[in-house]
Amino acid sequence: MDLKNYFEERLSRVDRLLDACLPKEDTLPASLHKAMRYSVFAGGKRIRPILMIAACEAVGGDVAKVLPAACAMEMVHAYSLIHDDLPAMDDDDFRRGRPTNHRVFGEANAILAGDALLTEAFILLSNPESNRGVPAETLLRVIHLIGRCAGSLGMVAGQVVDMESEGTEVDLPTLEYIHTHKTGALILASIQTGALLGGGSEAALAALTRYGEASGLAFQLTDDILDVVGDQEVLGKDVGSDLARGKATYVALLGLEGARLRARELRDLAVAALAPLGEGAEPLRRIAHYIVDRSS
Amino acid sequence: MDLKNYFEERLSRVDRLLDACLPKEDTLPASLHKAMRYSVFAGGKRIRPILMIAACEAVGGDVAKVLPAACAMEMVHAYSLIHDDLPAMDDDDFRRGRPTNHRVFGEANAILAGDALLTEAFILLSNPESNRGVPAETLLRVIHLIGRCAGSLGMVAGQVVDMESEGTEVDLPTLEYIHTHKTGALILASIQTGALLGGGSEAALAALTRYGEASGLAFQLTDDILDVVGDQEVLGKDVGSDLARGKATYVALLGLEGARLRARELRDLAVAALAPLGEGAEPLRRIAHYIVDRSS
Repeated sequence: MDLKNYFEERLSRVDRLLDACLPKEDTLPASLHKAMRYSVFAGGKRIRPILMIAACEAVGGDVAKVLPAACAMEMVHAYSLIHDDLPAMDDDDFRRGRPTNHRVFGEANAILAGDALLTEAFILLSNPESNRGVPAETLLRVIHLIGRCAGSLGMVAGQVVDMESEGTEVDLPTLEYIHTHKTGALILASIQTGALLGGGSEAALAALTRYGEASGLAFQLTDDILDVVGDQEVLGKDVGSDLARGKATYVALLGLEGARLRARELRDLAVAALAPLGEGAEPLRRIAHYIVDRSS
Repeated sequence: MDLKNYFEERLSRVDRLLDACLPKEDTLPASLHKAMRYSVFAGGKRIRPILMIAACEAVGGDVAKVLPAACAMEMVHAYSLIHDDLPAMDDDDFRRGRPTNHRVFGEANAILAGDALLTEAFILLSNPESNRGVPAETLLRVIHLIGRCAGSLGMVAGQVVDMESEGTEVDLPTLEYIHTHKTGALILASIQTGALLGGGSEAALAALTRYGEASGLAFQLTDDILDVVGDQEVLGKDVGSDLARGKATYVALLGLEGARLRARELRDLAVAALAPLGEGAEPLRRIAHYIVDRSS
């Protein structure tokens, strides 16, 4: 199968629905809606929507039923990047080769655009027209899952501990805590949401949870590796920026080769977890490889 | 009926549930959960939960079924205050006589505590155990309603236009836009949510919507009046702070007596809207009077 075509077909559906759901740029207040769209359509990899769709298909589900949740997840992701980049947080000027949201729209608008994107995710998840054919109980379960993974015991917890750890000696358990929360939680939630909306069995959900935990961590390991050896042009951000800022990384703790080895081990664990799912999980298998082999 | 007892009995149930729902102060990351609780338990008037509960009771509903949504609404309110007070926004050092969240916990933690409180609201609204006995379809409708009123076409829109208007000449339509969005939207959503969870008819919902629109605006008019004539000790913030900052207020546009007259007109409109609801709406009637006659 052609992973590129698979990605592109599904991504264009995600992008079309995101465009249809988000208020237009000239909807009042225009500055707010411009800021929201700026970050949602910033050339992100859309790895979370893709994982959600692939998980849905792996359990034999209908892509149409997972698209709104895939878009909601991307809104949550976009909100988290806007807030992480703020001067009070990571103070980043560039992301994906473009000025960060607050550099273009100002700090207040960036905070509010993030707030509004997070809220918009739940508006979309609870929209009966967008989610036609999905039982209300399933939608509630998805809202609860995404909320918990994004909230004070999930993604936000990861960001707090990440910031608290800056400039300190971080051990491996703390680094794993940061990543399983900061990035892993939403990746796992994406995969579990795909399984839920695809109507997968509890056994399939358990297999996909193992896949999600391993591939989420592999994703972060690869990010850390790329921060050291990546191509600045391809990455769209400064290489070595984690190091310069005294951030703990897997490369710092395990060495470059150690980090590569661990990323490959996790990839193999993720692929092995898919065994019970058969042929329909082929895209997820390919994505696990892509996560570790990518160059940006 | 004794409004004070009515308030106190219901507020203590709201506070108990808030305490039970929010992660404890020592739950990791402790700094985050301390910051979240600091603002939720900051001595707010809890006017939104009270309105929600009173609207639920006005249509003959069961208070137990509305308590989780009342707590969720208070979390949304607390998040909005934390973010509004940030240096990049209104830059306030004090609220209700205490240092604002970012003054105690730092800007990054304050942003994240707000984010987490907004997320926690949706976690609670979608929690099947907390909302036992409420149909999933009704919960989805409540989530959608609260989301829309809090989002980029609701409360966040009001805050954006409020900030954009600072130091400019603001006309009455713009001022009404700011207030119907910034504070009115959540007040209206509270009342509508109470009607929905109380199982009210569409006619009752329509009557309560009229009540909510009028009393929400009356609430803001009274805030503006208190900013000019209020007692600093009772308010817990500087009197005249809106004026000093060049903020548009009803008092500036209508004069003190004009603003008082308009507040009373709106109170009477709100009370008149309750006519079809009979005796059960007595607490709402009394709250409409309290909103205009309060001293803080």
